[in-house]
Amino acid sequence: MKEKPLILVTNDDGITAPGLRMLISIMNEIGNVVVIAPDKPQSAMGHAVTINNILHCTKIKIDDGSQTEYKCSGTPADCVKLAVSEVLKNKPALCVSGINHGSNSSINVIYSGTMSAAVEAGLEGVPAIGFSLHDYTWDANFEPARDCIKKIALKVLEEGLPKGIVLNVNFPKVDNFKGIKICRQAKGNWKEEFDKRINPQGKTYYWLTGKFIVEEDEVDTDEWAIANQYVSVVPVQSDLTAHTVLNHLKEWGL
Amino acid sequence: MKEKPLILVTNDDGITAPGLRMLISIMNEIGNVVVIAPDKPQSAMGHAVTINNILHCTKIKIDDGSQTEYKCSGTPADCVKLAVSEVLKNKPALCVSGINHGSNSSINVIYSGTMSAAVEAGLEGVPAIGFSLHDYTWDANFEPARDCIKKIALKVLEEGLPKGIVLNVNFPKVDNFKGIKICRQAKGNWKEEFDKRINPQGKTYYWLTGKFIVEEDEVDTDEWAIANQYVSVVPVQSDLTAHTVLNHLKEWGL
Repeated sequence: MKEKPLILVTNDDGITAPGLRMLISIMNEIGNVVVIAPDKPQSAMGHAVTINNILHCTKIKIDDGSQTEYKCSGTPADCVKLAVSEVLKNKPALCVSGINHGSNSSINVIYSGTMSAAVEAGLEGVPAIGFSLHDYTWDANFEPARDCIKKIALKVLEEGLPKGIVLNVNFPKVDNFKGIKICRQAKGNWKEEFDKRINPQGKTYYWLTGKFIVEEDEVDTDEWAIANQYVSVVPVQSDLTAHTVLNHLKEWGL
Repeated sequence: MKEKPLILVTNDDGITAPGLRMLISIMNEIGNVVVIAPDKPQSAMGHAVTINNILHCTKIKIDDGSQTEYKCSGTPADCVKLAVSEVLKNKPALCVSGINHGSNSSINVIYSGTMSAAVEAGLEGVPAIGFSLHDYTWDANFEPARDCIKKIALKVLEEGLPKGIVLNVNFPKVDNFKGIKICRQAKGNWKEEFDKRINPQGKTYYWLTGKFIVEEDEVDTDEWAIANQYVSVVPVQSDLTAHTVLNHLKEWGL
């Protein structure tokens, strides 16, 4: 009998998040699962890593599943680094992150702790996928995403991914998807509005709030796919070079 | 007389960092400077933003320069959001971030608070540049970078930058640069080594340490430029789509 693949599971909403628990239950069906996830919510942490403080990583049992679990005091990227370099005996065949409670499509990918974990795994040479559902609530219904997550994970285990490339998978908040679309990241941005308040001691403070603006409606984008009830799959790279403007800048004669 | 341009200055090492103070002094020569910088070090914060906590932003005077200054309790990306949406009356003509105490070349760009501030400014439609010196010490010598920073900032004020593109400028630790090179981000990665210790109460904890490995030595990369005493300038984009693998993934037939 062929040995089951080693699968690393993490997220950014924290180890008790329902989205993570669902992802663990799906992965238990296809591999030997080790979970190393943040001990508290780490949303919007971007690709932060902990260099000026210590990290704790403690074995924990949360449910009756077959997975092995650790909670980690660090960021999602810390979790992956600790997993690959310290906790796991062998390199995982796959790393999955999520299921995030909320969108990581369009520009949200750069703020995303979920995706930073996937990108970090990619840098370590581990095929990786971040999964997100466009529903921010704690009791979001992740069940409709189950089959699709299993399908994509099995495909990545079978095919692998090009070096340094990871997948950003987003699910619309619907019960039935129209299908899966390979997409590019839509142009979009947050229009911030700071909610300015005065604390009981008379000091001003702010809450960051804002509205997400999709800046295009092209059919090859993730936002179009989501808006039209498709699951979006965007290949994400860690080379941030804007290759198309290199020649333009060379003409500046700096 | 032409009005001087409004320049936003920030960083990730915190408002008292010598690299920031140097950057302010250079920008005071070419514009009206407003500083909104973290009140404590925020290195390796990636593109983190503060959504589950409040932000403070307080006017402060640190030296006798002509700039206006605010310290902010948030991340570098928070500083830029607060600046553009709340503190500044007009949109800045330029945002500069740094000078970082340490490298942001190669893959370091994705962990960098310095660069996240620049990328955030780019998303807000503000031309932006992150400056970093390959010297992690607090008393690093930033003086050799002075003329070059002024030159690049003036050029960006004159030419602008393509929408969504920002510059990642890295200085080698030398007294005399051989010149400025427009580069792409070198392939490189951190090889982590966790330093495992036991605290006085008997509990295990870890320090993240590691060694940076440059994975290529091509002459068009930032790492080559730095190693050969050139200043590297990499255009950075916030579209993370791996466009070259879209067709490959479509063949999977998901």
